[in-house]
Amino acid sequence: MRKVAVLGATGLVGQRFIQILSNHPFFKISVVAASDNSAGKRYRQAVQWHLDMPIPENVFEMEVQKCEPNFDCDYVFSALPSDIAGPIEDEFVKAGYIVFSNASSHRMDENVPLIVPEVNLDHLDLIHNQTTKGKIVTNPNCSTIGLVMPLKPIFDRFGIRQVHVVTMQAISGAGYPGVASLDILDNVIPYIKNEEEKIMTESKKILGSFEQNRIEFAEFDVQAQCNRVPVQDGHMLSVFVETEQQTNVDNIIKSFEEFEPLRNLGLPTAPRKPLIYLPGERSPQPKLHRNLANGMAVSVGRLVQMSPTRFRFVALVHNTIRGAAGCAILNGEAYELLRNR
Amino acid sequence: MRKVAVLGATGLVGQRFIQILSNHPFFKISVVAASDNSAGKRYRQAVQWHLDMPIPENVFEMEVQKCEPNFDCDYVFSALPSDIAGPIEDEFVKAGYIVFSNASSHRMDENVPLIVPEVNLDHLDLIHNQTTKGKIVTNPNCSTIGLVMPLKPIFDRFGIRQVHVVTMQAISGAGYPGVASLDILDNVIPYIKNEEEKIMTESKKILGSFEQNRIEFAEFDVQAQCNRVPVQDGHMLSVFVETEQQTNVDNIIKSFEEFEPLRNLGLPTAPRKPLIYLPGERSPQPKLHRNLANGMAVSVGRLVQMSPTRFRFVALVHNTIRGAAGCAILNGEAYELLRNR
Amino acid sequence: MRKVAVLGATGLVGQRFIQILSNHPFFKISVVAASDNSAGKRYRQAVQWHLDMPIPENVFEMEVQKCEPNFDCDYVFSALPSDIAGPIEDEFVKAGYIVFSNASSHRMDENVPLIVPEVNLDHLDLIHNQTTKGKIVTNPNCSTIGLVMPLKPIFDRFGIRQVHVVTMQAISGAGYPGVASLDILDNVIPYIKNEEEKIMTESKKILGSFEQNRIEFAEFDVQAQCNRVPVQDGHMLSVFVETEQQTNVDNIIKSFEEFEPLRNLGLPTAPRKPLIYLPGERSPQPKLHRNLANGMAVSVGRLVQMSPTRFRFVALVHNTIRGAAGCAILNGEAYELLRNR
Amino acid sequence: MRKVAVLGATGLVGQRFIQILSNHPFFKISVVAASDNSAGKRYRQAVQWHLDMPIPENVFEMEVQKCEPNFDCDYVFSALPSDIAGPIEDEFVKAGYIVFSNASSHRMDENVPLIVPEVNLDHLDLIHNQTTKGKIVTNPNCSTIGLVMPLKPIFDRFGIRQVHVVTMQAISGAGYPGVASLDILDNVIPYIKNEEEKIMTESKKILGSFEQNRIEFAEFDVQAQCNRVPVQDGHMLSVFVETEQQTNVDNIIKSFEEFEPLRNLGLPTAPRKPLIYLPGERSPQPKLHRNLANGMAVSVGRLVQMSPTRFRFVALVHNTIRGAAGCAILNGEAYELLRNR
Repeated sequence: MRKVAVLGATGLVGQRFIQILSNHPFFKISVVAASDNSAGKRYRQAVQWHLDMPIPENVFEMEVQKCEPNFDCDYVFSALPSDIAGPIEDEFVKAGYIVFSNASSHRMDENVPLIVPEVNLDHLDLIHNQTTKGKIVTNPNCSTIGLVMPLKPIFDRFGIRQVHVVTMQAISGAGYPGVASLDILDNVIPYIKNEEEKIMTESKKILGSFEQNRIEFAEFDVQAQCNRVPVQDGHMLSVFVETEQQTNVDNIIKSFEEFEPLRNLGLPTAPRKPLIYLPGERSPQPKLHRNLANGMAVSVGRLVQMSPTRFRFVALVHNTIRGAAGCAILNGEAYELLRNR
Repeated sequence: MRKVAVLGATGLVGQRFIQILSNHPFFKISVVAASDNSAGKRYRQAVQWHLDMPIPENVFEMEVQKCEPNFDCDYVFSALPSDIAGPIEDEFVKAGYIVFSNASSHRMDENVPLIVPEVNLDHLDLIHNQTTKGKIVTNPNCSTIGLVMPLKPIFDRFGIRQVHVVTMQAISGAGYPGVASLDILDNVIPYIKNEEEKIMTESKKILGSFEQNRIEFAEFDVQAQCNRVPVQDGHMLSVFVETEQQTNVDNIIKSFEEFEPLRNLGLPTAPRKPLIYLPGERSPQPKLHRNLANGMAVSVGRLVQMSPTRFRFVALVHNTIRGAAGCAILNGEAYELLRNR
Repeated sequence: MRKVAVLGATGLVGQRFIQILSNHPFFKISVVAASDNSAGKRYRQAVQWHLDMPIPENVFEMEVQKCEPNFDCDYVFSALPSDIAGPIEDEFVKAGYIVFSNASSHRMDENVPLIVPEVNLDHLDLIHNQTTKGKIVTNPNCSTIGLVMPLKPIFDRFGIRQVHVVTMQAISGAGYPGVASLDILDNVIPYIKNEEEKIMTESKKILGSFEQNRIEFAEFDVQAQCNRVPVQDGHMLSVFVETEQQTNVDNIIKSFEEFEPLRNLGLPTAPRKPLIYLPGERSPQPKLHRNLANGMAVSVGRLVQMSPTRFRFVALVHNTIRGAAGCAILNGEAYELLRNR
Repeated sequence: MRKVAVLGATGLVGQRFIQILSNHPFFKISVVAASDNSAGKRYRQAVQWHLDMPIPENVFEMEVQKCEPNFDCDYVFSALPSDIAGPIEDEFVKAGYIVFSNASSHRMDENVPLIVPEVNLDHLDLIHNQTTKGKIVTNPNCSTIGLVMPLKPIFDRFGIRQVHVVTMQAISGAGYPGVASLDILDNVIPYIKNEEEKIMTESKKILGSFEQNRIEFAEFDVQAQCNRVPVQDGHMLSVFVETEQQTNVDNIIKSFEEFEPLRNLGLPTAPRKPLIYLPGERSPQPKLHRNLANGMAVSVGRLVQMSPTRFRFVALVHNTIRGAAGCAILNGEAYELLRNR
């Protein structure tokens, strides 16, 4: 068993880390850490628990630690808010820890891998450029993950020229207390701070190629317009994509269904099918499909051909599982398994 | 005063007709008509009233009539469901009534004007092609209205090559009982029957040109993906548009703000400014802006330039007022005023 | 393994039967039955599935049967709507089946046990009064179950004089399509048809005593006012209770915590603790606590003493699990185990 | 015209003050004041506007002042949060202003009138006990107002022994940002801080009698359990009341309908009928009835007799209008008119 710490363990994404790691075959939580305000309390006292399962017993009475690099653990999972994550993660990396971060602070750093294991696990070697004692691996923004997962098989088989994406994002994406109920009940807010920029830049790094020890960004154009909607969990994406080569709906669905890039790696959190194409015209829906494959699959539906090279479809990603904690843990699993080869 | 009848007066759009017409300077409701099931009852008994104002006194005790063409009125406003509207409206037209219909049945008929007065009032002359004793004028689908209103000034000044639109539509758009609460609470449904087709075909007729007694459809490409969201009233549209000529954000906002095509006509239901550009990055929002100008304006925001000829913006339309009853009444007002010239 | 049938298998409560029975230690679904409209179709085609898990494999391709008493099974679980359940269940009983019904049709019949196993399992012997070949056992209305569970230990230890209860009930309680979204989004409806009467009559039968082969109804006064609120699952009850004897908060909490009447029976669906007292002042909440003990526990909180004999508290019951399918299955388990003694 | 100031003008209740006062026959806003943080900004810049009408023009560009007692005005309306209202209001009173406060700080002070004009306008004379240069008049908590309005005619005609009330309260009652959307979407929270206490104490002061220059509190017992529900505006109350004398439903409805205590006073914000009894069994509902009489009436429905002296009913109050700003303004109007007699 690898001992792991969770930074930002009391937040919404932190709770998802706790949930997924509470029953993991080779990661065992040895430390939960949070703000100085929470430090010293029992986890059950420090947290405002938001999941509809009880707090797992392994952390229930655990004392919350400060986010200082003196933990007895191998890996550090960071669910820290982006505005404070950067320097704290830096300290852990300097001190020799392997950090898997969900924060945006270091995602676009030249030598930091930004990884969705199904999409660009080969970028992991970028860590060899890091000259620190420890290393840092990041996962993308939640919406970006929901976008690049279905784009990847299209990109590989047919090429991509241009992408327009409109998101309809769940309130849990804003953390807690996050979105005020007065703002979102019976409403849509057509703006999420920094979100459009993240989608537009991160997706091109992830779909870029790893050549000569650096990432060559993908060159297609991505444009995003992000909306908040009154949904608890699950970001919906309405995607218009222009391919380089002509193709058709059947070929693209086939590319989704054959997309099993991690099949033989044995990563315990990896879903057998990372993309689930749902044929009914009313799918996917957050309420019905966000928890498919324990929240780790991206559901896709309503694929329509608009011209020989233009298509549209809808994708759904569980933002705090697949789009955050689950992806970071998958990065940790991949790192652990690859280092043992 | 012109006497007017409302067909389908007990439905959601029918109630909006009642609301707007209850205090109109030259239309006076003489008949409320609905299904045979409601006929013979007092309006207050037949209706399940959904507005947060009391039922207007002028119709409160009025007896609901069958939808048969024997009314004492000049104009007929039709809020009938599209699956039954066609033949009933035909009977009224044959009998000599002037029908203003919100139903989709006849919108795409060659000689039937499909009108948003601010956009294509000149198409009204198409009625001279109608050989019937009465005439019929239609207004578009609610989402289409929200789309063509902001597209019109762009189209006129800069030309349009291509449009991608994603809608986030309110539940009132589906009538009553319409969307089951189990389907939409904490959810998004990425499909609305026939809606995408309506947007894609109607918008090209409306923005078409009236030449040699027929409509020459506009030639740009429109693609739509429609979603239902848990909002009472107000359809949001996220629009990506490619113009023919290069331009910029300032010019397009100027085109919105100068858009006052009905200024001198004196139509009482016409908003002074049919397009309201809201500069804040969190606007428009259904809850805050759907009732601007009594629900008759289309609010626009978040205009962003993506390339010299590519832009995106968000638009909001009150679907049962501006997008339905209000537009039909505006058509009636325009007809009345133009016939008197 | 006992073969069981589910009547009304495509409805919301039917889906909960399917969910709970899909992995049951001694019940195995051999038949799914529904309306003539669904009969002949595969279950996956006939159902509009509303749960956020996939349809279980054991019924996915099963052919839906008509509700006619020619099934190869021992027990019949009925999730039929009450307006049609009565005669259909009668036919099954006449034909010799043991029927566990969630419908209200026969609940108040003199010789029909109305059972919540934790509360009045001894009433089961009432079936010996039934002269039919088969037998019928009913479970109460969902809100009644949420009420009588916490009342039972109070009733036994301190006596009850009077109860006032206000319910805040989830939309899933109305079936599908059930409550229109236009009626309930941003709203509360202070009325649920027949619900108040059910609570007021059923609770006195359940808490009655079984003497001389008949039920002597409990004599305290129960008054209920029922509201629909925009919540998916989980009925909340705000309860004011006047006891016969003086007591205090500690004693009542103790009575809740010691309430384990089924402890030694080994019913697989029975929760270890059927009443969970949550001490925080913000508990219980539907979103957080409805799924405790797989949705089979009633959560209680906010117990306050108002006078030596007057108390108030809040209770939460998962209406389609504990309050419907789960209770009927528990009745079936109890029947099966008791008959084997 | 009387010049008036609004303290806390940028908050939710402050916005309602602005809305109602923007078109008042004898009050004219001369000052808008708020926290030091907002002071110095234009009102339009300082406020996050939450109403679905534009900011009134009379305050749009007004400069926000600090809450210091140097205003050019006669009356001060206070919408300050209760945690800071006390000392600030004291300063204004000392400086000679007449303060009408919606805050809870001074409501229970012995010599401070706690007034709902329809219920206890005679308590206003309590201000003569105040020895300060200025005076302070308070209005009750929003839920209390919804309770005492329908209790008043019952109390006067039939006497009251005991009241149990369960509230279902809108999110706007918590101010902004107030309730986190993660806490309330698809949920009910069975607790609102201090709310139950306020209802239980304030209602007895309001229904008390003014004798020998002091308030003799009413003696009946009031018990409240308060819940937050996902509704924008409008608190629902489910009320069980035991009368002293026997009566019946007709008599109580008559007492509601004849309740017009302010009829001849000419208060411009007073509704003609402060209690509206709605006979349908699905009334009142927040969405449909909160805005009756411009949000100033309390709607009542579902009156049921439980025994010769026990009744239950449902009441609805618009919490930020009738239950806050509107009531304070009504107090101001009553003060102004009475001083002129």
